[in-house]
Order: sequence, then structure tokens, then C-alpha cells
Amino acid sequence: MLPSAPHSGPRSVRLPAPLTGVVPPLCTPLTPDGRVDTRSLAALTTRLAGAGVSGLFVLGSSGEAAYLTDAQRRTVVETVIEAAGGRLPVLAGAIDMTTARVLEHARTARSLGADAIVATAPFYTRTHPAEIADHFTRVRDGADLPLFAYDIPMAVHTKLPLDTVLTLARDGVLAGLKDSSGEDGALRRLLVRVRAQAPVFSVLTGSELTVDGALLAGAHGVVPGLGNVDPHGYVRLYEHAAAGRWREAAAEQGRLAALFALTDAGDPAVMGRNSSALGAFKAALHLQGVIDCPATAPPQLPLDEAAVGTVRRCLEEAGLL
Amino acid sequence: MLPSAPHSGPRSVRLPAPLTGVVPPLCTPLTPDGRVDTRSLAALTTRLAGAGVSGLFVLGSSGEAAYLTDAQRRTVVETVIEAAGGRLPVLAGAIDMTTARVLEHARTARSLGADAIVATAPFYTRTHPAEIADHFTRVRDGADLPLFAYDIPMAVHTKLPLDTVLTLARDGVLAGLKDSSGEDGALRRLLVRVRAQAPVFSVLTGSELTVDGALLAGAHGVVPGLGNVDPHGYVRLYEHAAAGRWREAAAEQGRLAALFALTDAGDPAVMGRNSSALGAFKAALHLQGVIDCPATAPPQLPLDEAAVGTVRRCLEEAGLL
Amino acid sequence: MLPSAPHSGPRSVRLPAPLTGVVPPLCTPLTPDGRVDTRSLAALTTRLAGAGVSGLFVLGSSGEAAYLTDAQRRTVVETVIEAAGGRLPVLAGAIDMTTARVLEHARTARSLGADAIVATAPFYTRTHPAEIADHFTRVRDGADLPLFAYDIPMAVHTKLPLDTVLTLARDGVLAGLKDSSGEDGALRRLLVRVRAQAPVFSVLTGSELTVDGALLAGAHGVVPGLGNVDPHGYVRLYEHAAAGRWREAAAEQGRLAALFALTDAGDPAVMGRNSSALGAFKAALHLQGVIDCPATAPPQLPLDEAAVGTVRRCLEEAGLL
Amino acid sequence: MLPSAPHSGPRSVRLPAPLTGVVPPLCTPLTPDGRVDTRSLAALTTRLAGAGVSGLFVLGSSGEAAYLTDAQRRTVVETVIEAAGGRLPVLAGAIDMTTARVLEHARTARSLGADAIVATAPFYTRTHPAEIADHFTRVRDGADLPLFAYDIPMAVHTKLPLDTVLTLARDGVLAGLKDSSGEDGALRRLLVRVRAQAPVFSVLTGSELTVDGALLAGAHGVVPGLGNVDPHGYVRLYEHAAAGRWREAAAEQGRLAALFALTDAGDPAVMGRNSSALGAFKAALHLQGVIDCPATAPPQLPLDEAAVGTVRRCLEEAGLL
Repeated sequence: MLPSAPHSGPRSVRLPAPLTGVVPPLCTPLTPDGRVDTRSLAALTTRLAGAGVSGLFVLGSSGEAAYLTDAQRRTVVETVIEAAGGRLPVLAGAIDMTTARVLEHARTARSLGADAIVATAPFYTRTHPAEIADHFTRVRDGADLPLFAYDIPMAVHTKLPLDTVLTLARDGVLAGLKDSSGEDGALRRLLVRVRAQAPVFSVLTGSELTVDGALLAGAHGVVPGLGNVDPHGYVRLYEHAAAGRWREAAAEQGRLAALFALTDAGDPAVMGRNSSALGAFKAALHLQGVIDCPATAPPQLPLDEAAVGTVRRCLEEAGLL
Repeated sequence: MLPSAPHSGPRSVRLPAPLTGVVPPLCTPLTPDGRVDTRSLAALTTRLAGAGVSGLFVLGSSGEAAYLTDAQRRTVVETVIEAAGGRLPVLAGAIDMTTARVLEHARTARSLGADAIVATAPFYTRTHPAEIADHFTRVRDGADLPLFAYDIPMAVHTKLPLDTVLTLARDGVLAGLKDSSGEDGALRRLLVRVRAQAPVFSVLTGSELTVDGALLAGAHGVVPGLGNVDPHGYVRLYEHAAAGRWREAAAEQGRLAALFALTDAGDPAVMGRNSSALGAFKAALHLQGVIDCPATAPPQLPLDEAAVGTVRRCLEEAGLL
Repeated sequence: MLPSAPHSGPRSVRLPAPLTGVVPPLCTPLTPDGRVDTRSLAALTTRLAGAGVSGLFVLGSSGEAAYLTDAQRRTVVETVIEAAGGRLPVLAGAIDMTTARVLEHARTARSLGADAIVATAPFYTRTHPAEIADHFTRVRDGADLPLFAYDIPMAVHTKLPLDTVLTLARDGVLAGLKDSSGEDGALRRLLVRVRAQAPVFSVLTGSELTVDGALLAGAHGVVPGLGNVDPHGYVRLYEHAAAGRWREAAAEQGRLAALFALTDAGDPAVMGRNSSALGAFKAALHLQGVIDCPATAPPQLPLDEAAVGTVRRCLEEAGLL
Repeated sequence: MLPSAPHSGPRSVRLPAPLTGVVPPLCTPLTPDGRVDTRSLAALTTRLAGAGVSGLFVLGSSGEAAYLTDAQRRTVVETVIEAAGGRLPVLAGAIDMTTARVLEHARTARSLGADAIVATAPFYTRTHPAEIADHFTRVRDGADLPLFAYDIPMAVHTKLPLDTVLTLARDGVLAGLKDSSGEDGALRRLLVRVRAQAPVFSVLTGSELTVDGALLAGAHGVVPGLGNVDPHGYVRLYEHAAAGRWREAAAEQGRLAALFALTDAGDPAVMGRNSSALGAFKAALHLQGVIDCPATAPPQLPLDEAAVGTVRRCLEEAGLL
């Protein structure tokens, strides 16, 4: 069922193979009345570009893709592509339940100038690995852009099977993987085989607390939600690792792991994990003066004053305020 | 956060409160090239109406809502509303990840003439019960149509909390519940409290194998996927129960439980559960001459010949061919 | 791998095939210093026997089997067998992780005079259905007593596959099933096939809130934890169902479903579900004067005064105090 | 509820604080008729000691603790303690469902001379974090030996909460943690706080594929099941890391990750994951001439000839045959 020859469609000139470095998943700033705040989003883009990241991922989980309407998603892609001004490749999430719906998002992103698509396995439905492979193949063929698989079992409730990823990598269906599974043992097994069998395939970890270990294991880069708040930290971490300064990389990662405590600011007794973590990222960006309003999309609940105080303390301890 | 007074918006004249009886979740016939087969869908609508069902639910899980594009979903609602011709209330699924996206589907369905909306809790995201309540309240207010909560943990990966449902029922936010959780113990506890506290709230079971027990426990009706294949069976089952003929109801349910074996036709080693169950419903409708083509939407895999043979045998044993 | 011929070992004269009726899973009263309170346990036995139950199940989940040492388990079996005095069959749980350990418990129970063994699939380990079948076959052969499979995914984290149960039932490895899965749809499919293929196999539901529906569907009896608190209610429910008085059965079940609210007495923010539910059963038995002390085994936390007040109110509303 | 002052009971002279290095979880060789093969177990002990490990962990998951009777467990502890001859500390698993049962195993192990106890949170039951803390406190107090928490959600179905572990570490209830959760992000957050707040607490990773990253993050050692098969590899990996030779550590880890493919030898369509992984470890030890018989305990199924061939090939590719 899978194509036996690699895809040979046009590749974005801006997208290296493999993609490496820090590729932050941009938050989506909103106005108090719930529209996409394009000024703040452009400011965030500029800040990240200035910090030395190597790509921009819009409409991921940190970008609240699941909460945005199709029109809002379009605005996000347009805004970031314009603000990036061709300096950096823009990867666009095409987050939806199944193939046909994902394809519509992917084609829209392509028409707006995105350099690559990021898509999950089907969710809401119950899907076999063979169907997952078929899904990615159809999305790749229909979108005609490099495709990154987004492995996020916390949201999708299945883990991408190693053999499926590897086959799709070798066949050129997938250009890369964003691994947000948190299963670093499975990631290690994949990396060992990717190195031998699919050398231009890009493996990016989405586990922002084990980036040093992932890079040591051979991962090409990282997609850190926390990179919205401290892009310089992740760039330093990546550069230490690239230069073989592992102790320094680990120290930087340790500092970022302590900073990550801000995602626990919201009380789990009264709000969901998304409200707490995404609310904290936005509160931090607001406190840092990057975005104008810390609002998250409904039905997420806002952080209360005490929670924002926790975020502030975390930033201060990390020297970010 | 929840409104203290019941909603007083316009209720569809066609939607009784509580809604009772058999409300099948219509399959969505497709053409061989993947478009909605409106002729077959109209034929299915006519068949179900003729069997004595009391409502029609489009764009549920049996209707492959998760696989259809927005344009396809629109075609489904239009086709069924036209084919129903005002004889039966039409409930439309608004299946999407979060509030704003659900609302867009709901408003479309309303503009096309749907009589009620069916929506799940948020999925893909991690959501607190307070956020779930807020979600339904916003959907109800924004859609301005009676709203049924769709409890389907298999797809959504959370179970609607009993207290949340009951509060929303009492406050008039929810007109009813489609309970596809399979947790009949929790359903019983809900029914005991609904009877005392929310008498016009409609509780419909989506567990098509325990309808007799659910009706005995006080459920108002059933939304059976298998009702596409044997609507007369479910109507008989409901009528036996309504008349207090419980032994006869149980015998009918036993027959339908045996027929349900057709959903296992597809080999779980090679395809997902959706491919097998939805493929079997459509194969049966095709064998019965109701729809022109048994195709399911990608990336579901088609049943092979042996599987279709199994479906045929199940139909024959049930006297449906 | 499974035996092709039915087992022909000695059956307890006290154990009918199939076993029917109400078979409560006895709580295990403890003294304030944590020993098995044999006086209270004998009193509970006598009370249940007097209420008209048809069997006694010791060392199940309601009996805190998981919390008791081997010596305590032995005391429980001895005490109940002596108190029952041969009037009722005694089924003994042999709850442990895998085959060899389960067998040791089973042999002890047999040596003490138990009439049947109740065992789960392996837990803690990751087990294939073929291994589960092998497990039950070895336990049956080694224990030389009728064996009931205990399907309790909440504890064991796997659901017994329908085909495995049916094969073991037909082969005579299993004498019956205690279904605490809460999946009444799967139970219905099993019952349809048991009736045709394994007529002496006993299917007992452990879902104490849907007993009327389960009996209507053909289940042979019920193992209700709540039956410790209101054995007369479950006996009435069973007798109504046996006589075809389904409305009366449903009304009795509704009353018991309301009473079940006592299991929510403990605050989930401060204690586990076991502490709340088992604590509530014991608090109720203590308030009813059946047992001397409501203590549960560590590390379960005790109900506080407010929670005991909730239990008392539930009992009063149900007319049990 | 938790003690406010550190425990001051006698510490084993043989157990450093914190424990560091490679602490393999010993397999339990069995004879063809299912008894513990003490000769092979002593040989395995000698081999591991000779490879430079720093401790021995018996009766863990790799040791099939869940499958062994109490008498077999006793034999394992005695055999390894005797074979170790005081050269290495012996940590004994006390794997059972709840506190009282765990304590009995712990006291037996202590009486046989074990240097520390390893215990999980309660399983089979539903337990609150406060109850988990109480559980470990009671086990520590009752066993009067250093206690390691065993975090293995795959078996126990709960993850130890970070705050619970940290509080118990600071209070001296826990001497260390064996983290087999596979959640290296959570591990990182723990390590950052352990370093600041509980400097003698020993954190050992059980994730045998990410040891380099864990050590880089500050873990003290590793408990690798695969270390039965290649103890020298893990000792080299540890020594590279201890000396700051991170590239060499990563290369060694990569080699071991490739070797780990032997655990997939068994076909998941016909056997459980335990049968495959533990069967492969034992097949490898048998092929290497360390143990006399590769049998695993029932109801695990044996590897077939093809699977053993796979194990052989993995050993050959790793230069271990």
C-alpha cells in the first residue's frame, strides 16, 4: 500500500533536510474578545527569530490549534509567515480528526506559503497502524509539502508504532517526526534505526525537559513549548550540545526544567492541564511584555492572581524578568 | 458560571421534550469516489422513517462524522432534512475538538434546519469538568437550538461526570444525553436522579445491546447504530418495552445482540474497529439494497470478501436477507 | 492447549450448576488493631444467610482480599464456612498476581472446605489471551474445585475476552463468571452465546446497579457489594425478576441505586475510591449494628465524621436504620 | 501523617547512600519442572559481580517476582545473598498488592540478610497519593531496612507523584527510587529537586534505553533488565558517563538499544509482552551458557525456535556470542 519509491515533489528551499535546531511551537496570542492578536503574534515571531531558532511551528498544541476556528488558523499562518519574512521555515499544524479534514487544513497552509505540514495520526476514531500509514501517505500526496508526523499520545491516544514511522521515513512519505510522546526509550530505538536507514529524516523531540539526552541520543532538534518563554535558553542548550559541551547542556536543561514549574501554576482541582500550562506560557509572555493579553481560548479557564504570581516567581528565579 | 434560570429560547416544534423512542444514527453512504451519495442517504432516511423511528441523528459516529469534510457534513444535513420532509426531528452532530469549532458546525446545522444539536465534551485537549460545563453552556447559547450531550469516552477519552450532566439538565442547558459510554451502572444512577430532578430531560442510550435494561431503568429511548441495519427490530423492542412486555423486549434484544456479531466481520489484525463496524453496517445496507455502495471514508480499510460473507450470514441468520 | 473434554472432577454437593440468585461478596470486619473480627464476620454471615441469599463469596474486592495477609485470608474462609454451617455454598477468592500464587490460595481454601474458587486473570504482568486461558486451566486442574472467573478490569486492567470465557465454559474449565467489568453490552453478547453453547455455566453480574437488566438478559445471579448493607433488597430484586415482575424489580433496583450514593461519602480529594466505598459499606454495617468496628485495612484512610453522617443519611432514606 | 524527622534505624553497612552505578535486576533461572535453579542463579550472580556492578536487585519484574511463590522468592533471596558473599549489597523486591502483604515479604527478606527493600505503590486497588505515602511509611517502619520505591506504572497502573516521592525522600522514609516509568521528563523534574533537597537520596533509572541521558541529568545509577545479558556494556556505559565521556556513553547506549531488539523476539499475536521480553533474556543467558534452562514461569508461553533464532542473531550482532 505504501509507495515503494521516495516522493520527489518540490521541497521548500527554506526547509533543510534534516531540519535541525530549535523549532518553537508558537503560542497564539488572543485579544480580550477572543480574536487572534496579530500584532502580538508578529512580535512573538520576531522575538523567536532574534533568539536564533531554526524554524517556526505554528498551530501545534502550544498554539491552541484545537481551540481555533479555521479562519483563526488561517490568520495565524498568514501572520507568522509574513512576520518571518522568509528568514525561517514555517511548519504548520494541520490538526484534525481524519484524513480528508487534515488535508483541507494542509492545502490551506500550503496556499498561504507554509514550508511543511505537521499532522497527527487520526484521533476520535479507532485506527489500525495500516490505516495510520495510509493516512500519512494520503496527506503527504494531497498536500504536496514535506510532512512531519506529530506523535502526541496524550492528545491522540495512540502512540505511533516505530515500524510505521520508520517505513514512512524510508519511503519519503515523512520528512520528520515531532515526538511529544514522552517515551524517550522508544525514541532511542527509533534514532538508532533512523541513523542507519533514513539519514535525512528529521527527528525533533517535543519533550522539553529531556532535550540534552535526546540530542545526545542523536535527535536533530527540539520543539519546546517552553521555548516561547525562554527561546535563548533552548538555543544555548542546543548549541552546547552541538559543540559537545554536555555538562553545560545538562546545566541549561536543569535550569529550564526548574522553570517548567510555571506550568503547574493553575490549581488542578479547578482547571484542566491545558488551562494551566498554556495559561502559564501566555501569562509569562505577557509579563515579559511580548504579548498584549494573556487570554486563552474557551473553554479553558483563566489563571487567577495567585497563579500569575507563581508564574512571575518562576520567571524571576530563572532570571527572565 | 452556569445560568441560574432555564433557557427559554425557541424550541423546535418537531422536538418533543423529552424525546423518546428509536433515534437511529444514520450511516453516511458514499459513492465509489468518496462523495456523499445523496440518493442512497435519502433512501436510508425514507426506510428509517417508514420503520417507525421517532427521530433521525445525523453526523454521529455511525455517520462517520469524524471522516467527513465540512462540505460533506453540510450535504448530509441538507439531504436528510429534505428527505425527512418535516415528519421527524433531525438531530445533527457537531463533532469537533473544542467550543468555537463545535459552534461553527452547530450554527451551520441550525441554518440548514436541524432541530437539535449533539455535541461531545472537548477532546484532544485535557479538560476539567468545570470547563466541560462551560463548553456546553457556550454551545447551547451560541447555537440557540436544543442541545444533547454525547457521552462517548471511547472517542473523547473522558466520561461526562454525573453531576455535570445533572446540573446542566436542571439548568436547561442540555435537552438530553446520548449515552454511548457503555457504563450502564452510571446511567442507572443518572436516571434515578433525572426522574426526580429534571423530568423533561431526555436520556437516550447508545448502547445498542442493553436497550431493554436501559428502558426498564427509565431511559427514554435509544440511538442504535445497528438500527441502520434492522430498524424494525429496534422499533419492536421499544414498543414491547413501552407496553411492559419485558420478556418479548429481551428476546428481541437477544436477537439483535446476535446480529451485532456482524460488526466483528473485519479482522482486527489488519484493520481498526471503526473499519470493521462501520464497514459492516454499510455492507449490510448494501446487501439489503438500501444503499448503492458500501464504501467507507479513508483511512478506513474496506472489508474483504470473507468479511462481507460474514455480514451476509449474520443478516441471513437474523432473517434480514 | 485447552483440554478438549470437559473436566469431570468432583463437584461440591452444595454448589448447584448453574449457581443462581444473590451471592454477596462479604466484607471482612476488622478489630481496631487490625485483626479479622471473627465474631462480626460470623454475625454478617448469619445475617446474609437469614436474608435468603444463595451463596457466600469471601475474599473478593468487597472483602478487602487485596489487603489481607495469607493468615487473615485463612481466618476469613474458616470463619465463614463454620458460620454458614453447610447451609450455603462458600466461594473463596484466590486473588493473586499469577498462576502459582493463585494456586496456593486455592489449595488452602479447598483444604478449609470452600466449595468453589474465584480467580482473576493475571495482573501486574502483561498477559496474552492464550496465557489467560492457560492460567485458568492450570488453576482449575490444580485446585480441583469448581472455578469462577472474576472479570474486574478496574483492578486487573484487562477485560476477559468473550471468546476465551466461552471456550473455557464449554470445556468445563470454568463453572461460572463473576462479571464486574461494568460492560453490560459485552455481558449481553456472552449471555446470548452461553445460553446456546454452555447451559450449565453460571453468569453472575457484579454490577450492582444494573441487576434487573442483567437478569432480564439471562444472567443467573448477582454478587453485589451493596448486598452486605441491604441483602433483603437484592433478594427481593432477584425474586421479582425470577417471577417476571420486571417493574417491581426495576423499582427495587432504583431504590438500591439511590442507596449506592453512600459509596461516595469519602471525599475523592483526600482518599482513594476503595477507602470511600469499602469504608462506607463497613460504616453502614456498623451503624446497622452488624459489625463491631468500621475499620478498613491500611493504607486505606478512614471516613471522617461528615462522611459517616452521609452514610447514615443514605441508610435512613433507604429505610435501613 | 509522615514522620517529621528522618529515620535513624540501622543502615546496612553494605549499602552506600546514595547507591550509585549498575544494579541489575536478576533474572530467576528455573529448572524444566519449574523450581528455582539455584546453581544457575548463583552463576548469574557471580557473572554480574565479576562484571563490576555495584549492587544486585532480586525479585523485580525481570526476576519474575510476580510469578514466584513465597517459597520460591525465599530461595531466590537466600541463593543470591550467599553467592554474593557480602561483596555487593542485595536489594530485595517485596512485590505485593498492599501494605500488610508487602511487609511480610519485606520481613522475610530482612531475616535472610537483604540490605534493602524495593516496593511499589499498592496495586489492584484504587489508591490516593496520601495512601501511597502512608503505605511506604508503614513498610519502611515495619521492615526496618532502607526502602526503595519502585515506580512501574506499566504494572501498577499509577505513577508515583513527584511531590510524594520528594517528601518521602526528604523525610528519610525512602532511601531511593527505581524509576521504571519511562517518563524521563518527570524524572528530570525530580532530579532537579532531589539535588537541592535530598542529596543522599538515590535515583536509579529502570529505563535501560536512556541511561546516558538519565546519568547526564543526574541520576545515580541504573537497574537494567538487559544488564542480565550484557552487564559489561552497562558498566562501560556507566563508567563513560562518570568520567564525562558522553559521546562514548551514547555510543554504548546505542549499541545496547540495538541489542534490546531481542525482547521483541516473541510474536505479539501469540504471546504477552512479558513472555517475549523475559523469555528473550533467559534465552540469551542460556545461549551464553550462564543458565541451564531458558524456561519462564507459567502462564508465560515459551519462545519458539524462530524467536530463539532472533535472540541468537541479536547477540551475534552485539558481539555477545
